[in-house]
Amino acid sequence: MDRIPILKLGGALIVTIQVDMHDRLALALEEDLTAMIARTGARGVLIEISALEIVDSFIGRMLVSIAAVSRVLDAETVVAGMRPAVAITLVELGLELTGIKTALNVERGMALIQARLSDEDDGHGSDRDRHED
Amino acid sequence: MDRIPILKLGGALIVTIQVDMHDRLALALEEDLTAMIARTGARGVLIEISALEIVDSFIGRMLVSIAAVSRVLDAETVVAGMRPAVAITLVELGLELTGIKTALNVERGMALIQARLSDEDDGHGSDRDRHED
Repeated sequence: MDRIPILKLGGALIVTIQVDMHDRLALALEEDLTAMIARTGARGVLIEISALEIVDSFIGRMLVSIAAVSRVLDAETVVAGMRPAVAITLVELGLELTGIKTALNVERGMALIQARLSDEDDGHGSDRDRHED
Repeated sequence: MDRIPILKLGGALIVTIQVDMHDRLALALEEDLTAMIARTGARGVLIEISALEIVDSFIGRMLVSIAAVSRVLDAETVVAGMRPAVAITLVELGLELTGIKTALNVERGMALIQARLSDEDDGHGSDRDRHED
């Protein structure tokens, strides 16, 4: 497997992390996501990590990097489905997922992204977004 | 990886196939999907296979089997994202995906499932569903 599939759904891109991430795969994912945000104008990136038993500093950096690049392209990154044990480890290690929102599951994560989209449809999105940051 | 994550979104369950399927993984996926349909009352199962370069008879049987079990539990199975080369091979091999609808991508697949859901909300779903079969 040399590419992780990216699913487009409405204004969001959904990625499920299922395999062990290595350097090249992480880079490819970031590139693919960036290209797809640019092509589709997606406003949200949802990364589902329920299959991950470990989120180490490598994965953490990858997520933060994806979020940073997506933000520049005006898309918000939401990580969904983190296992409780992973959350505990993240806090214990002091790893901070800067610029990333988390959601308990995909449904809530999509709700976050949809809320942003509908805020913008109402024409006062930029104001509200600021409050959330 | 011993389990493929299943994402619940609205009335649908979404599965992305990213890894090589083997016997045990296919069985586990079928069991997990069945349990999740029963638990969540999902009415559609969307299987995204854009990462698959080959759909052989093993994968074909797995998809057909998932669709058959889901149908008994009143959920419709849609396969999305099939590569053109895979489609050609399927036809050449004479593999039939009985009971499975296909969609070009996740967005269209979800639209198929949503159409079924909203038909049922209108109170005349069962009639319309028959026409499609």
